[in-house]
Amino acid sequence: MNHNPIRLGVLGLGRAFTLMLPTFANDQRVKLVAAFDPHQTSCELFAKEFGGVCHNSVESLCADPNVEWIYVATPHQLHKEHVCLSAKYGKHVLVEKPMSISIADCQAMIDACNEAQTSLIIGHSHSFNRPVLLARQLIESGIYGSARLITTVNFTDFMYRPRRPDELDTSKGGGVIFSQAAHQVDIVRLLAGGKTTSVYARTGAWDGSRKTEGAYTALLDFDNGAVANITYNGYGFFDSDVLMNNIGELGKIKSAGTHQKTRSNLLSGNEQHEAQKKAERNYGGAAYKNVLHVPPDGFQHFGPIIVSCDLADLRLTPYGLEIHDDNGTHQREVFAHQIPRSEVIDELWSVARLGNHPLHGGKWSLATLEVCLAILESAKKRSAIIPVHQVSAESSYATEWTRDSDSS
Amino acid sequence: MNHNPIRLGVLGLGRAFTLMLPTFANDQRVKLVAAFDPHQTSCELFAKEFGGVCHNSVESLCADPNVEWIYVATPHQLHKEHVCLSAKYGKHVLVEKPMSISIADCQAMIDACNEAQTSLIIGHSHSFNRPVLLARQLIESGIYGSARLITTVNFTDFMYRPRRPDELDTSKGGGVIFSQAAHQVDIVRLLAGGKTTSVYARTGAWDGSRKTEGAYTALLDFDNGAVANITYNGYGFFDSDVLMNNIGELGKIKSAGTHQKTRSNLLSGNEQHEAQKKAERNYGGAAYKNVLHVPPDGFQHFGPIIVSCDLADLRLTPYGLEIHDDNGTHQREVFAHQIPRSEVIDELWSVARLGNHPLHGGKWSLATLEVCLAILESAKKRSAIIPVHQVSAESSYATEWTRDSDSS
Repeated sequence: MNHNPIRLGVLGLGRAFTLMLPTFANDQRVKLVAAFDPHQTSCELFAKEFGGVCHNSVESLCADPNVEWIYVATPHQLHKEHVCLSAKYGKHVLVEKPMSISIADCQAMIDACNEAQTSLIIGHSHSFNRPVLLARQLIESGIYGSARLITTVNFTDFMYRPRRPDELDTSKGGGVIFSQAAHQVDIVRLLAGGKTTSVYARTGAWDGSRKTEGAYTALLDFDNGAVANITYNGYGFFDSDVLMNNIGELGKIKSAGTHQKTRSNLLSGNEQHEAQKKAERNYGGAAYKNVLHVPPDGFQHFGPIIVSCDLADLRLTPYGLEIHDDNGTHQREVFAHQIPRSEVIDELWSVARLGNHPLHGGKWSLATLEVCLAILESAKKRSAIIPVHQVSAESSYATEWTRDSDSS
Repeated sequence: MNHNPIRLGVLGLGRAFTLMLPTFANDQRVKLVAAFDPHQTSCELFAKEFGGVCHNSVESLCADPNVEWIYVATPHQLHKEHVCLSAKYGKHVLVEKPMSISIADCQAMIDACNEAQTSLIIGHSHSFNRPVLLARQLIESGIYGSARLITTVNFTDFMYRPRRPDELDTSKGGGVIFSQAAHQVDIVRLLAGGKTTSVYARTGAWDGSRKTEGAYTALLDFDNGAVANITYNGYGFFDSDVLMNNIGELGKIKSAGTHQKTRSNLLSGNEQHEAQKKAERNYGGAAYKNVLHVPPDGFQHFGPIIVSCDLADLRLTPYGLEIHDDNGTHQREVFAHQIPRSEVIDELWSVARLGNHPLHGGKWSLATLEVCLAILESAKKRSAIIPVHQVSAESSYATEWTRDSDSS
C-alpha cells in the first residue's frame, strides 16, 4: 500500500482555503505541492510557506505531474469548469461546498470524473465532523433501534458577517440555503441514511437591506420513516453556541457578545468596505491571521443536534456524543486530535490510499443540493417537494477513537 | 367594584385539581366554597381543609347559590355535559384543558355559555405562564418589529409516567397531541397572534407497547406571516429542562436522572398497577403529597421557546425573558410571586371582577383544538391542513411586574 502523503494542488487561495489551511498544514497525510490563484501575494506566501510550485494558470496546475489531487476552492460558479479540467488531466478532486447551485453542473462534474476514472469528494462540510460520524456509526449499528426524529437548530450571525454582493443574492448562490442548509441537510441525510423522500419548508428574508434568505425551517421525510426538523436563523441575535458549551462552529471557544459585535462592526462600513474587509481576512490578505499552530478547543459543529432513536437520544456535543438511554446519561467523548477538520483527510486518505468509496461523493452531494433547492421551491410554492435524485449513504469507515465516560 | 374573592365550586378532585390546588389554596382572590367528586375520601379532605360544602351530585353543585364560578376538572369526555349544566344554572366556568377532543363539543360549550351569558375560560395551560404573556406583550407593542419565526422543542418523559389505558388511546384523547400539543399550540398561537393558516406535521408512535403518539414535529403558518416550528418528544430520554436552568415544567428544580427513573419505575409495574399508581397521587389518595406551602423555584414552562422578531430574539426562561438585540443580551426577569399558576387567577379576576374578555376563552380554545386535530390529520394525509375556525388573540392585560437586569 502507498503510504506516501497525498500530493495536493490548490486551486484558489481564498476563504475556503484559508479555513482548510490549518488542516493541510498540520496533517502529515497530505502535502501542499502546488497552487494557482490570480492574487500574486497569496501565491508568493504559499510558495514561501510550503515550498509549493506557483502556477500561472489553472490549466498549468491541472497538468502538473507532481499533483495527485486538486483541491478546488474557487468560487462555486467556477467549480464545474475546474473540476472538469482537473478530471481531464486525470486528477482526483476535492471540491469545496457548495459543489454547485445547479443540478446539471453537479451532474457534469460527476460525469467528467467517471469518464476520467478519477475520484471526487465534496468538502469540507460539517457532516465531516467526527461527532456526526460517530452518531452515524451508532445508528448504522442498530444498537439503539431505528432513528426516528432528528431535531436541529442553529442560530448564527451569518447574515451580518462581511459579505460580497453575490453572497446576498440567492440567484448567485447567496443566502443561508446554499451556504448553511448545505451543512444541515448533509448532516441529517447522513444521520437518517441519505434518501430524502419529501421536503416542506418556509424561508425568511426579513432584512430589506440584505435581500436574501437569512432563515428557514423545514421538515424532511426519509425513506426509512425518519423525519428531520431543521431550523436555521442567521440574523445574529440569539447564539445557539451557548447550548454547545460555548464552542463555536470552528471549534474555538466563543466569547459572549460575538453576535452583537458582528452586527455593530457591519454598521460602521459600507458595501464596498464590506467585500474588501472580507477579502482581507483571506490567506495573504492584510487582515489574515495565521492560526496554523492553535489547537482547537473542540470539534467543529453546526449547532445543537439531537437524534431520537427507539432506545436512546443521541445529543451531539463539541467533544463527541451525549447518550441518553435506559442507563441514564453518558458522555462518549471523542475529542482528542489536535488538528481541526482532520476528518477531511481521513476521508481523503480512505479514498486515495485505501480504495474506499467516499461518504461525500458526487452523487451524495448532488442529492444534498437537490434538497436545498427543494427548500427554496417548497417555500415558494408552499407545498411539499418530492426529490428524485436521492442516494443512500455509503457505510461508515471503521474507526477506533472513542472513549466512554459516565456523567450520571 | 366587587373586590370579594371569587367563590369557586370544584367539579372533580382528581389530577387537574391536585395540580391547581396550590394556586387556589394560596391566592386570596379565590375561595374554595364547594365541591363534588365521586370519591368520598377526597370530598372529606376537601371539607376538612377548606370548610367547603361537599355536594352529592354534579347538579347539586351547579345549583349551589353560593358558587360563582365552577372549576370543571372532570375527565375531558365529561366537559361538555358539565359546562353546559353549569351554564344552565347561570354559573361562569373555568374548564380544564383539553377543553374537548371534539370541535362540536367545544362549540356546544361556547353556545351554552353564550346563551346563559356566563363567562368561559379554559385553563390552566402553559400559555398562561407569565414569560409567555410578557413575550406576547412585547410582540404586541411592536418595539421589536414583527414576530417571524417561533422555535420550540420539548423533550419529556410524558409517555412513561403512570397512565390510565385511555391516556394511551388517541381516539379517547390519549397521546401527546391532545395533552401536550395543546400547550405548545396555545403558546405559539398566542405569540404569533392566534390565526393559524396552515398546519404541516409528522407524528411518531414508536413504542408498540404504548400505541399512541409520543412525538410530533410540525410547521404552522400564521396570517401575519409568522411561522412556528413545534417539536415534541415524550419518550423519556433527553430532558430539555437542562436547557431551562434545570427547572421542570411545574416550576420546581429537577434532578438529573428524572427521565431514567420514570422509565425504570414503569418497568416494575403492570397496567392495572399503573392506573392505580396514578390515581393514588391525586388529592386525598394514598400517595398524595401536600405541597401547598412549597414556593416554586421558577415559573412553570413548556420547554425552550425562542421568538425571532425583526429586531430581537426573545428566549423564554423560567424567570422571564432573555432578550437578544442590538444592545446585547438582557435578562428581563419577572419571577417574584410565590404562588404557582397565579396567572390563572389573574385572568379569572380580570374577567370576573374587571369585566375583560378572557385571553383563553371558548373560541380561542376551540381554535387550539382545531390545530391539534390538524396535526393528526396532516400526519395521516401527509399534506398541509388549512384550519377554518381560527381567531385572533385578545389584547394582553396591562401588567406592571417586570424588572430588567443586564447580563452582558
